[in-house]
Amino acid sequence: MSIRIGILGYGNLGRGVECAIRQNQDMELMAVFTRRAPETVKILTETAKVCHINDVSDWKDKIDVMILCGGSATDLPEQTKEYARIFNVVDSFDTHAKIPEHFENVDAASKSGNNVAIISVGWDPGMFSLSRMYANAILPEGKDYTFWGKGVSQGHSDAIRRVEGVKDGKQYTIPVESALEAVRNGENPELTTRQKHIRECFVVLEEGADAKKVEAEIKNMPNYFADYDTTVHFISEEELKAKHSGIPHGGFVLRSGKTGVNKENNHIIEYSLRLDSNPEFTASVIAAYARAAYRLSKEGQSGCKTVFDIPPAYLSEKSGEELRATLL
Amino acid sequence: MSIRIGILGYGNLGRGVECAIRQNQDMELMAVFTRRAPETVKILTETAKVCHINDVSDWKDKIDVMILCGGSATDLPEQTKEYARIFNVVDSFDTHAKIPEHFENVDAASKSGNNVAIISVGWDPGMFSLSRMYANAILPEGKDYTFWGKGVSQGHSDAIRRVEGVKDGKQYTIPVESALEAVRNGENPELTTRQKHIRECFVVLEEGADAKKVEAEIKNMPNYFADYDTTVHFISEEELKAKHSGIPHGGFVLRSGKTGVNKENNHIIEYSLRLDSNPEFTASVIAAYARAAYRLSKEGQSGCKTVFDIPPAYLSEKSGEELRATLL
Repeated sequence: MSIRIGILGYGNLGRGVECAIRQNQDMELMAVFTRRAPETVKILTETAKVCHINDVSDWKDKIDVMILCGGSATDLPEQTKEYARIFNVVDSFDTHAKIPEHFENVDAASKSGNNVAIISVGWDPGMFSLSRMYANAILPEGKDYTFWGKGVSQGHSDAIRRVEGVKDGKQYTIPVESALEAVRNGENPELTTRQKHIRECFVVLEEGADAKKVEAEIKNMPNYFADYDTTVHFISEEELKAKHSGIPHGGFVLRSGKTGVNKENNHIIEYSLRLDSNPEFTASVIAAYARAAYRLSKEGQSGCKTVFDIPPAYLSEKSGEELRATLL
Repeated sequence: MSIRIGILGYGNLGRGVECAIRQNQDMELMAVFTRRAPETVKILTETAKVCHINDVSDWKDKIDVMILCGGSATDLPEQTKEYARIFNVVDSFDTHAKIPEHFENVDAASKSGNNVAIISVGWDPGMFSLSRMYANAILPEGKDYTFWGKGVSQGHSDAIRRVEGVKDGKQYTIPVESALEAVRNGENPELTTRQKHIRECFVVLEEGADAKKVEAEIKNMPNYFADYDTTVHFISEEELKAKHSGIPHGGFVLRSGKTGVNKENNHIIEYSLRLDSNPEFTASVIAAYARAAYRLSKEGQSGCKTVFDIPPAYLSEKSGEELRATLL
């Protein structure tokens, strides 16, 4: 029997989860839940229903794992604890500083409903966190580095679009290659914000806007751009659409650590991602952890978990025997 | 209370484990067990004993985890199943094709002794296997690549030293950079043995040996060198000692996979290692898994496990709360 999946929230991430389910033979999408009028939402999966979010509890016994695809700012802090009372859930809560609080809330809720909840699943938090954790456990004496990009930062693109005179814009975060190389060479550099990442902006101006003024305002924007070397390119609306409508991302997690009688040997552990589609990759990670949530629940477990708590084999469709024979 | 560790076998790996234990505050080395006369073996840890391997069962209640540091060819197939009856054990069994058989033997033995055994721990098998497994679970449709090096291959160095006229030698396995780049670019190339790795040999000749003949014999050696582009450098014994006495290694594990409605998006997951000391890094991975073996045993678990079965958090000295606050 398939693992019966529900998707709550049908934006970029929800659509990515729908695609990911089609690539996992043991999963079946049962329904998509939306705040919009269901008849206005078209999905890919002909066998699945589109339902209003208010009807979600009718599905309690028809869905094994509910995947929560809302945003971290306002949706997930409320939704995950609410729906973890009813379903096994997986979310991609990514406000790092608030994870401990979110964990506590979801842990209580999921235990009260006797469900499994896996939070903060994706690539950062998610696979990047796992890399940091494994590398820290292996090399207790060392230094961690995380570089993001090359990729589109949604928050920085939004910030550009709020500048007066800007019609549209996209921002790429790019790691500084020489900094990355210094880490790889075991130099253990101390890096400032400016030394780690470059910000590159592609901007479409409103008619009659002052390019010099817009450029200055972007480059001097505190928090977002002032601490970085930022370049601004003015392009046409057509070019923005043609060349910058994708949502690529990625990055690098490195740990440089010492071993030996006198700490004479250095080791570099590096994990990196090059993603054509940030939401589709996040969705693919979530799908694998939905399998883990289902299995843990079948074993009678409950409560909140993170990627740190899940035995890797629980993510795979293959049996332990197959995994040992083919991937070990 | 510390986790009390024993080391069985005191070669490069055993010495590496001893160093790793010094970097983990919650572990204490109790004793090293050797087939040699104990009084001839000098260890670094003043508080630990050196004992003969025949006396190992006297330590049943004084050691929490026994780390087995023998070789995979003849030692571990016998030792792991023997000592898993008495102790929680960790080994680095690395004969990939024989892992399923080894697992079965050790599983039965460890269950009969009510102990936990974690086998095939290190970087390949070990961290590379984990990378392959996670990446396969996340991207079910894709292609795997593993490149080894740059590093010293013990087996190939031994093969060189068996050639008539060779006094000493070292062999480096080197990944072909252009092949690695093609994978990173999402080209999904089909690669032959020759296209993936280069073999570079540094050879010291016996006096009067025929260099041309030695070079030809190495380059045409079946299995070891004939299928590769091999270069042979003749150097002096002094140079070999000065420049080639380290045991560096490493490599790259990549998965290239597709997602999207029409599989239009490509993703590259890459994990890589650059290790100054192959045995010390392997030992560091083993030390972290010794912690996991101890904890699982404390929980009342028994039987054989691999890296696929262990929740990542079990490797870390930090609590779940600390991990979520600092590394997620």
